[in-house]
Amino acid sequence: MMLIVMTAGATPQQLEQVIERIAALGLKAHAIPGAQRVAIGITGNQGSVEPALFENLPGVLEVIPVSHPYKLVSREAKSENSVVTVRGVPVGGDNFAVFAGPCSVETPEQTLTIARAVRSAGAQILRGGAFKPRTSPYAFQGLGEPGLVILRDVGREVGMPVVSEALDERSLELVTEHCDMIQVGARNMQNYSLLRLVGKTRKPVLLKRGMAATVEELLMAAEYVLAEGNYQVVLCERGIRTFADHTRNTVDLAAVVAVQRLSHLPIIVDPSHGTGRRHKVIPMARAAAAVGADGLMVEVHHEPSQALSDAAQALLPEELAQFMRQLPALLPLTGRHLAQALELSA
Amino acid sequence: MMLIVMTAGATPQQLEQVIERIAALGLKAHAIPGAQRVAIGITGNQGSVEPALFENLPGVLEVIPVSHPYKLVSREAKSENSVVTVRGVPVGGDNFAVFAGPCSVETPEQTLTIARAVRSAGAQILRGGAFKPRTSPYAFQGLGEPGLVILRDVGREVGMPVVSEALDERSLELVTEHCDMIQVGARNMQNYSLLRLVGKTRKPVLLKRGMAATVEELLMAAEYVLAEGNYQVVLCERGIRTFADHTRNTVDLAAVVAVQRLSHLPIIVDPSHGTGRRHKVIPMARAAAAVGADGLMVEVHHEPSQALSDAAQALLPEELAQFMRQLPALLPLTGRHLAQALELSA
Amino acid sequence: MMLIVMTAGATPQQLEQVIERIAALGLKAHAIPGAQRVAIGITGNQGSVEPALFENLPGVLEVIPVSHPYKLVSREAKSENSVVTVRGVPVGGDNFAVFAGPCSVETPEQTLTIARAVRSAGAQILRGGAFKPRTSPYAFQGLGEPGLVILRDVGREVGMPVVSEALDERSLELVTEHCDMIQVGARNMQNYSLLRLVGKTRKPVLLKRGMAATVEELLMAAEYVLAEGNYQVVLCERGIRTFADHTRNTVDLAAVVAVQRLSHLPIIVDPSHGTGRRHKVIPMARAAAAVGADGLMVEVHHEPSQALSDAAQALLPEELAQFMRQLPALLPLTGRHLAQALELSA
Amino acid sequence: MMLIVMTAGATPQQLEQVIERIAALGLKAHAIPGAQRVAIGITGNQGSVEPALFENLPGVLEVIPVSHPYKLVSREAKSENSVVTVRGVPVGGDNFAVFAGPCSVETPEQTLTIARAVRSAGAQILRGGAFKPRTSPYAFQGLGEPGLVILRDVGREVGMPVVSEALDERSLELVTEHCDMIQVGARNMQNYSLLRLVGKTRKPVLLKRGMAATVEELLMAAEYVLAEGNYQVVLCERGIRTFADHTRNTVDLAAVVAVQRLSHLPIIVDPSHGTGRRHKVIPMARAAAAVGADGLMVEVHHEPSQALSDAAQALLPEELAQFMRQLPALLPLTGRHLAQALELSA
Repeated sequence: MMLIVMTAGATPQQLEQVIERIAALGLKAHAIPGAQRVAIGITGNQGSVEPALFENLPGVLEVIPVSHPYKLVSREAKSENSVVTVRGVPVGGDNFAVFAGPCSVETPEQTLTIARAVRSAGAQILRGGAFKPRTSPYAFQGLGEPGLVILRDVGREVGMPVVSEALDERSLELVTEHCDMIQVGARNMQNYSLLRLVGKTRKPVLLKRGMAATVEELLMAAEYVLAEGNYQVVLCERGIRTFADHTRNTVDLAAVVAVQRLSHLPIIVDPSHGTGRRHKVIPMARAAAAVGADGLMVEVHHEPSQALSDAAQALLPEELAQFMRQLPALLPLTGRHLAQALELSA
Repeated sequence: MMLIVMTAGATPQQLEQVIERIAALGLKAHAIPGAQRVAIGITGNQGSVEPALFENLPGVLEVIPVSHPYKLVSREAKSENSVVTVRGVPVGGDNFAVFAGPCSVETPEQTLTIARAVRSAGAQILRGGAFKPRTSPYAFQGLGEPGLVILRDVGREVGMPVVSEALDERSLELVTEHCDMIQVGARNMQNYSLLRLVGKTRKPVLLKRGMAATVEELLMAAEYVLAEGNYQVVLCERGIRTFADHTRNTVDLAAVVAVQRLSHLPIIVDPSHGTGRRHKVIPMARAAAAVGADGLMVEVHHEPSQALSDAAQALLPEELAQFMRQLPALLPLTGRHLAQALELSA
Repeated sequence: MMLIVMTAGATPQQLEQVIERIAALGLKAHAIPGAQRVAIGITGNQGSVEPALFENLPGVLEVIPVSHPYKLVSREAKSENSVVTVRGVPVGGDNFAVFAGPCSVETPEQTLTIARAVRSAGAQILRGGAFKPRTSPYAFQGLGEPGLVILRDVGREVGMPVVSEALDERSLELVTEHCDMIQVGARNMQNYSLLRLVGKTRKPVLLKRGMAATVEELLMAAEYVLAEGNYQVVLCERGIRTFADHTRNTVDLAAVVAVQRLSHLPIIVDPSHGTGRRHKVIPMARAAAAVGADGLMVEVHHEPSQALSDAAQALLPEELAQFMRQLPALLPLTGRHLAQALELSA
Repeated sequence: MMLIVMTAGATPQQLEQVIERIAALGLKAHAIPGAQRVAIGITGNQGSVEPALFENLPGVLEVIPVSHPYKLVSREAKSENSVVTVRGVPVGGDNFAVFAGPCSVETPEQTLTIARAVRSAGAQILRGGAFKPRTSPYAFQGLGEPGLVILRDVGREVGMPVVSEALDERSLELVTEHCDMIQVGARNMQNYSLLRLVGKTRKPVLLKRGMAATVEELLMAAEYVLAEGNYQVVLCERGIRTFADHTRNTVDLAAVVAVQRLSHLPIIVDPSHGTGRRHKVIPMARAAAAVGADGLMVEVHHEPSQALSDAAQALLPEELAQFMRQLPALLPLTGRHLAQALELSA
C-alpha cells in the first residue's frame, strides 16, 4: 500500500495522469479529496513497486510507502517466536542464551582457558574470531582456518557449540565446515552477496545490525537469508553510530522491542562491542536481559591486557560469573529462563 | 592538561614559539620528541585556557584537551554519591525513585485520578506539565499557573512532592513557588540564563539531557547550576536524536553508567519521551532499573486517547502498577531499594 | 490530512470505532480497502489534531501525518521570496548578504579594526557577540551591554548595520535597543519563550538552526516568531551534530534547498560554526554561495591567536577579502548579486 | 605516538607498572607530571600497538592515540596530489571529472540514449550499474554480466571510459574484465576482503564513503587497496546517515576539504545518492564544485519515471547540460578545469 499526496495546485489533468499510471501498473487508485489537496491511496500486489515511479510526475508532492517490504521475517508471516537451535542449544522463545568467549582465538591454551571459564560461569555458546574485520590493514587479522580448528576443538572439549565470523566466500566455507553457527558482522550486514551465500547454507546464522542500519534494514538483511531458504537466523543489536562519545557505539535497546514486535526472529545484544568499555559491559548486559533480549554476546579474556584485539572491552571470567548469578532474578521478569546447555560429546 | 602535536615538518623556531606562548600564559611546557614529530604536554592551572589559542600557531597539527572542564559536578570533587531530597523523598544513593504523572495537567479531576493511581502503584513523586514546550505555536501549551496550582493541591492531597517544568524567568518563579522540584527540559539544557536562575533557587532541580548533548555537555549544564550554589541536581537521560526511526529518540542507557563514573549526581531515565511509544516504555523502564539508574520518570494517563499531549507514550495506571511489582526483584541487583515515600500532610 | 493504517487482522468493529472517533472530531474519514489491510484517510480542518489520538485505538497499526504543520512560514502561504531589510541592507530575494565580524566584541579597538577590514572586504552587516552561550560557566561570557554599545558605535562609524545574539529577556531588551538585528542562537532555537518575545519586537531576526533540529523544526521555530506578528526572519544553517569528527558540526547545505522549497524566508549559512576549522571556512563559504544561500555569516579576527573565544575558526581579514573577490563569478550562477550596502550616517 | 593519562589518585607503583609495560613493548615513555595527575607520552615505532593494551592497567584514566594510522594514503607519504587516469581521462590534480549515466543499465537503447546525452553535455566517464546492492531481495538486482557488456559496448561507441560497481569476487572479475574502473559502494566500504581483491587488480578504483564512516575510516579503507599495490584510488563522498530527513543522506562537503588535507588521493562527490531528490542534485553539484571536489558522479535518465531503480534522484539530460555550462565560471575558483575527455576507439 502506498499514498500519493498531490500539491495544493495540482490540476485535474495531473491527477488523471497519476491515476492512469497506477492503473497501467495493474494497481488500484483510491482518490481522497481534501480541503487543500487530493491524496491517492494505492492498493494491489506491489511487492516491487517503487515510490519513485510516481515522485517525478507533475503535481505530485510526495509519495508515502505504507506497507513494509519484509515478508518472511515478519510476524504477519509467522506469529509465534522462532527458536533457532545451535548444536542443541535453543535460542529464542523462552530461552535466554549467553554467547561468550575471546574476541580473537589466539592460541589453543588461551581459548581453552577462556572456554572453561565461560562454560563454568554458565555460558552456552562459545564465540571466538578467526577472521577479523579490522579498520587497519596492518592490524592483527585473526589466525584464519587454524583459529577455527582451535575453536572447534576447544568447543568439543568443553562441550559448547561454537560461532565465528565469516567475511567472504572462502571464510564462509571454512566457518560452515568447522563451526556450529555463522556470524555475519555489522560491517557486512548489507553485503548482500555474503547474505545470499549464508542463506544457501543450512547452518544457524548470527546477523549483527550495521552501525547505521535502521531496524527495517536489519530485518531486510535477514530477509535475504530467509529468502534463500535458511530460516535459522538470530539477530544481534550491537550499538549504532551516533554523536555520543562516551561509548564506542550507542546501544539501542529499544530496537530489541521493535524487532520482537515486527518479527518472529530471536534477537540478542552485544554490550561488548556496543560500549567498547569493560566497566559498562555488565550494566548494559543486565539492561539487555531486562528489556527482554533473547540472549547476550560478550567478550571475555582472562588477561585482557594481553589480548591481541579489543582488549578494552573484554570482561574478566569472574565478572561474567558474577553477572550470570544475577540472571535467575532477571529472566523471570520477561518470561525467560536460561537456555539449557547440552553436554556435547566430541 | 593539554597536548599539542606538531606537524612532522615543524621547524625548531615553530616549536620555540609554541613553548614561549605556553610560558607567557603562566603554564609549563613538556616537550616529547618522537620519531616523526614532537608533542608538547602542558600542565598548570588552566581552567579557562582554550585549545584554540594554540591551534592556529604555525607548525601545530592539533591540540588535544586532556583534562575535563567540569569541577563541582565531578566525582573527583566529591567521591560519595549525592542524595537530593525532594520534600522528603530521597533521590540518589541507594534509593530508586519513581516520578510519574500526566504529561500535561489538564483538569483537577484528571490530575487527581492519575495521582491516586500512580501513588497507589508505588510512585513517589508526581510529575505534570503546566508550561509545555511544543514544536508548534498552535499546539496546546499547557494551563500555566492554574495548572501548577492543580498539581500542587493534588500533590498535597495524595501526599506526593510535585515537579513541573520551567521554561523561562516567569514560569520559573511560579514553579519555584508552587512545586517541590524544578524541571529543566531537554530543549533548554543549554539555556544558560535559565540554568543560572535555577541555580539561584534553593529548590531541587531535574535537568534533562538535550537531544544532541554529549555526557560532558550534560555535566557542564549541571555545573552552571552548582556554580550558582544549588547542589540539588538530579540528571535525566531521555533519549538522543539519531537516525533510528523506530522510536522518537534513542535511549542511551550507557550514559547512566558514564555519568555515575564521572559525577556524584543522581541520574534517572525517562523512557516515555525516550521511546515515544507506549509498548516500549515498560521494557525500557526495566532496562533502566537494571542498568543502575537512580530512578525513572514516566507519563501515565488513565485515558490516553483523550490526552491533550503526548498520548502515544502514556502508560495506563495498571501498566505502571505491574511494572512496580517487578522492582523488588530488580533493584537489589544494583544495590538499590525503592525510595521511601513519606506521607506528607497538606 | 492524515492516514491511519489498520493491522492486517483488524476487525470491522475496530475499523468502525476509528471512523466514529474521526467523525466525533468533526473530520471526514475515507476508507481505503487493501488486499491485506485497510487504511483510512482523514480530511478536514485539523490544525491541532494529534496522531496520538488514534495511535492507541485497537487495530491501529500506524498513523501517518501527511500535511505539514507550518503555516505562515510556508511557501503555500506566500509564494514569492521574502526580503528582510536590516537597516537598509536587503537580505533575501536576489541579494546575497555577507555578515562578518568578531566572534566576541572584546575592545573598541579590536572591534573597529575588524569592522573596517570586513567593510573594506565588502561585507554588509557587522556581527559581534556580547552575550555568549558557553558550554562552561567558567569561560568568557561576553562583555554584556558594554559590548553592545561598542558594536553599535563601531557599526555607525563604519556604516554597517549590526547583529548580536540575545539569550534571554534582559539581553533581548538590550539587543533590541542597541542593534539592528536580533540573533537567536542554535542552543535557543527551541526556547519558545524567547522566540515569542522576539516575535513581539519589530526588529529583523536571525534564527539559527539547532544542532539536532530537522528542517521542519527550524521552520516551526520561525513560525513562533511570525505568529507573534514579526515577519522579518532570516534563517541560518550552521551545521548539525553527527558522528563525523573532522569538523565541529556537519554543515547540511541541502537544507538550504529544502528550506527554499518549503518556505519564503531567506536562509544564510554560517561555515565558521559549521566547521569550527579556519581552513575549511572559505571552501564551505564558496559551496554555500554555489548552493544558492541568501548570504553568509563568518567570524573574522585580525589576530586569531589572541581571540577570547572560538579562535580556531576565525578568518583573517585578507582571507575574507580574497573570498569576496570570487563572488562576482559565483553569484550569477544562482541569479543573485551582492546586497547593496548603504552608507549609513551615525 | 600515544598519550596515557593516569587518574588523580594513581600510585607510584601503578605509574611504574605502566612505564614497564611500555618498555616491554620496545617503546619509550615520557612522564609529564601535572598538578593533579601524571600523563605519559609514548614514542617509538608502534604501527600496531593498541590503546587497549594500556587502558585496563590499574591507575590509567584514558589512553589517547595521537598519530593517525594511515600511511600510504597520507599526504605525509606523498605530498603532491595523485592523478588517476581512467582510460585516458585524468581524475585529480587540476582536473574536474564528471561521471554520469543511468543508475542501472536496463537496455542497450536506454544506455546508449543516456550515454550520448551525457557525452554531449560534456561528461567524461560513463557510469551504469549492473550489480545493484538493494535493500530488498525482491527488488531489481541489475542485469549482471549482460549489463556490463552493454555498458562496455556503449562506452566504446560514444568514446567514454566506463565504471560499474563490483559486489563480490565474481562480479569483481567481470567488472575488471569489461570496465575501465571498479566501483566499491558505500555498503561495502568496510568489506575488507573485497578491498583486498580490488587492491590486487591494476584497474582504477572508485571507493565510496560508507554511510557511517568517518573520514579516517574512509582513508583506512583506501589504505587496504593501496597496501595491495593498487595506487589508483579515487574517493567519493556520497552522504552520511544522520537524523535529518529532508534528504536521503546528509552530504558532508567539508569531508572533501578534510580528505584533501590529509591525503593525496582525489575525491569526488555524488549528489544523486547524497540527496536522493532530483531538485536538490544540481544545487549540491554546484556546491561540490565550489568546495573544491575533483569531480562529480550523477545519475541521469531520459525518462526518470520509467527507471527501474532510484528514479527519484535521476537528472534529466538537459539538467546536466545546463549545469555543465556553469562549470567554466566555477572551476577556476578552485584552480581546476574540466578533465580532457579523450576520443577512444573501440
